[in-house]
Formats: sequence, C-alpha cells, structure tokens
Amino acid sequence: MDMISENACFGGTQGVYKHTSDVTGTDMTFGLFQPAEADDGPVPVLWFLSGLTCTHENAMTKAGAQAWAAEQGIALIFPDTSPRGPGVADDDAYDLGQGAGFYVNATQDPWAPHFQMWDYITEDLPELVFSKFPLDAERQGITGHSMGGHGALTIAMSLPDRFRSASAFSPICNPTGSDWGKKQLGAYLGDDTTKWVAHDASLLMKNVGFDGPMLIDTGTKDQFIDLLRPETLAAAIATRRQEATFRMQPGYDHSYFFVSSFMEDHVSFHAEALWA
Amino acid sequence: MDMISENACFGGTQGVYKHTSDVTGTDMTFGLFQPAEADDGPVPVLWFLSGLTCTHENAMTKAGAQAWAAEQGIALIFPDTSPRGPGVADDDAYDLGQGAGFYVNATQDPWAPHFQMWDYITEDLPELVFSKFPLDAERQGITGHSMGGHGALTIAMSLPDRFRSASAFSPICNPTGSDWGKKQLGAYLGDDTTKWVAHDASLLMKNVGFDGPMLIDTGTKDQFIDLLRPETLAAAIATRRQEATFRMQPGYDHSYFFVSSFMEDHVSFHAEALWA
Repeated sequence: MDMISENACFGGTQGVYKHTSDVTGTDMTFGLFQPAEADDGPVPVLWFLSGLTCTHENAMTKAGAQAWAAEQGIALIFPDTSPRGPGVADDDAYDLGQGAGFYVNATQDPWAPHFQMWDYITEDLPELVFSKFPLDAERQGITGHSMGGHGALTIAMSLPDRFRSASAFSPICNPTGSDWGKKQLGAYLGDDTTKWVAHDASLLMKNVGFDGPMLIDTGTKDQFIDLLRPETLAAAIATRRQEATFRMQPGYDHSYFFVSSFMEDHVSFHAEALWA
Repeated sequence: MDMISENACFGGTQGVYKHTSDVTGTDMTFGLFQPAEADDGPVPVLWFLSGLTCTHENAMTKAGAQAWAAEQGIALIFPDTSPRGPGVADDDAYDLGQGAGFYVNATQDPWAPHFQMWDYITEDLPELVFSKFPLDAERQGITGHSMGGHGALTIAMSLPDRFRSASAFSPICNPTGSDWGKKQLGAYLGDDTTKWVAHDASLLMKNVGFDGPMLIDTGTKDQFIDLLRPETLAAAIATRRQEATFRMQPGYDHSYFFVSSFMEDHVSFHAEALWA
C-alpha cells in the first residue's frame, strides 16, 4: 500500500492511499479520514460509497463529513466506484464502466475480469484497512449517495452482523425497475433477472430487511427522482416494519449541496449506533 | 445577470450567477449562499476571496462554509479570482494571469484591459449583489485563502468602515518580499515598487491597520509558508497593537482540509462582529 497524501484535517488526518487489489486485478485508490482518537486505539468506521462518475475524491472533498466524524470520533472510508486504468473495460456512457461499478461482481464480458466491486468493498478493502489502520471492525456503519446509496443499502442487508447502522442519501432504490439499473445489471450480470434481485434495495428490504436502524434522505426536487424510485423502498420499509427513518427533504436536489446539508444528521445517526 | 444554478443547501440557497462586469470588460461568475433568513430581509455578508488557480467554485464546494453560515444566518459571496475568456491575456504559469488576479488593478500591458480585480471586488460586484439580493451592506466581513487572504486583508485595511471584521486562512502576508508577489505585482503594476505598497498586508498593517477585529490562521506544515511570510504580518500586528488573533495551527498544511477545519471558527468570529 502506498500513501498518496496525508493532510491534517479537523484534528485528525485525511489520507489517500493506493493498493493493488487481488479481486479487481488493478491498483485501487481510497480515502481514509482518521479522527484524533485513532492515535489512542481503534475507532468506529463509517463507509461512504459514492455515486456515478465519482472517484474516492468527490465525497472526501465536498460532503463535509470530516467535521462531524471528528466530533464523533469515528473514521470515514471513501472507496473508489470502479476499477480504472488503460487495461480496464469502459463505455462511452457516464453510467456504465469506469466510475459506474454499481457495487456488483460482474459475470459478463468485457466487465468480468476487473469489475468485482462487491468483493472489493466487502472483502478486499476491509481486509486491508483493518490490518493497516486502527479501526474497529466490530463498529462499522455504511452510507452512500445515489449509486453509492444503492451499494450501502444492498451490502448492509446482505451481510447480517457486519454493519450496526445503514443510511443513504438519494439512493437508487429499485434498480431492477429503473433505467439506472436495468442497463447496468444487464451488462454486468447478464439477462437472467433472477441474478439482479440480490442487488435491489427494495427487493432486499422485502425479502430480508436489516437488523439495525436505517436513515434514508431524498430531496423532493431531486432531478433524478424518477430513476431513484424512493417510493418502492418506502413501501417495502413500511410493509416489513423495518426500523427506519425515511425522509423526503423539501426543495433539495441530487447534488453534494444536499448531501452536505444532512451529513451532520447521518454521522450523528451512525455514531449513536456505533458507540452504543 | 444570469442565474447559472441554484441548489437548496442547509435550509438556504447556494446560487451561481454570471454577469457582465464593466470594470473587467468580461463576463464574471460568482457564487452566493443565502441562508434561510434572507427570505425575511437583508442578512449580513461574508466575502470569501479564493487563492491561485481557483474559480468561484473551489471554496463554494470544498470549504464547508455553508454549514456555519446557515447556523449564523449570514450570506457568503465567492467571487472568481480573475477575468477569464478567450480575449483575456494569460500566462503559462499557474501564478500569473487567469486564476491569479492578485486583487489589484493592473496598469501594465497585456493585463491592464481586463485585470481590474480590485475594482471588481470593491465596486462592481458589491453594486450588483446589494441591488439584486437581500444583503445588508452595513454588515460586511471579509476573509479568504492564500492569495485570497492577501486580497481580504489588503482590501479590509484600505476601505475603512466597509468591513466590520477581517480574517484569512494561510494568507500571502508580504508579497513585496516574496516570490508570491514580486513577480505578479511587477507584471500587473510595473517596476515602480512604491505602487506595490498598497497591496502588501504587512506594510498596510504597519501603515494604517484595521479598525475592527482580525483573525489569521496558518498551518505550521504549510508547504508554501516561506512564500506566505506570516512572520512579517505577526510582527506588524504586534507593533501596531492591532486587535487580532494570529494562530499557527500545528500540523496543518495549505489545503482546503485546513481551511474547512477552521471554517467554523472564522464564520463564528465574523458573525459575532456582524450581528453586534
């Protein structure tokens, strides 16, 4: 693992690191914020999964999360959204290929050789960060934005006991029923739609749910709201009687101005669960 | 004036607007954050002047200022750092020309026709924003980062009674004695160094000072600290007995991770003066 940069930030350290991933077969870059408390021993961790077109950097610089993580004494991890590089397949569209990994393990060519983002986020990167940094694997929460909200919710529900709390900003809630989903799940997983079910937060909520609190925020003026389909997740949450807070935030759109506006709420929500 | 974008943000609105400036002779873009309180009437204003290479956008997206401005009920203005466009002079260096206006009125060619950033920031843009938005011209504070800290401090000291409070993050403190200054002041103002004195915060502190509180933060690990020369400003503040808080922040560098870490302090500092 190589250190790319480390900056003092809110009394802690915002680092960027690069490592070679066995599962993607590429170099991968991630951001890690460690609060001052990490000097004294392992701290809780909040994963932030980013959306379409993003690298590890967007949320790290624009979401304003470090202020609140420092206050709560928890670390933040900002993974990349896909494998990258000259040998890695890509597509001209912004919503497929590099920057659009959708947090699945691709089984179809040309994606299968490198697009193994599910395993990267759930196995490869955790193994690295928990061995290299003072992070408490027993106290993990997960959140994300848009495609990253989809990733956070599907991963949280699929790995019981891994995460104590799960949240999302403007998540893609029902990709099997949306143009933000059908195209990508088809490309990465193939035409057999039974393979898609494990990657749809609304269907997972219907089928398995989450053993912990959830917090979901979506803006009423989100310009992509018809693609996000929050109504399907809201209905599934209510039907399951899932412990959750589902909010439609008046006037807010899909931007990081929205994410940053409610970041304090999300970090506090996770901190309460992680420090319990 | 054209609206480029408006996003809901911390209960208020983060807007980006474009207008034709008479003094630069170009279109100019700026960011304006209005807190929710602006719906009920004029609110205080904090100007944020940005550093080398920046546009209106960097601080608007990376400094984390809106959270605290919303809490304090004050507006934020993020001007651009120079005129721009195909007809505007430029230089291959990152620290001269477009993105590097240095907050002066250029008298030398090829810069003089458009590089009139002093008048833009102190006359043209204020005239526009106070006529178009619910902002209280009697309650203005000014801050900035690096070259923008230089701009904030020199403008504040040169316009008595305009600003109630002035602050800076990692300001260029003594451009007449630094390679971040001599090159640019020479290019824009010519070789007569007596013309440079009005644009050196340390010399202005020695000669005139500021009738209000000041707050200056610089990181001890700032990679540009030898160019910033904070020691000259600290000495001038002490010699003048200027009301000021001058802080060297241990471990911090020149980045927006530093700026965002202390933004709450700066916004609170200005709010106290602006609401008094």
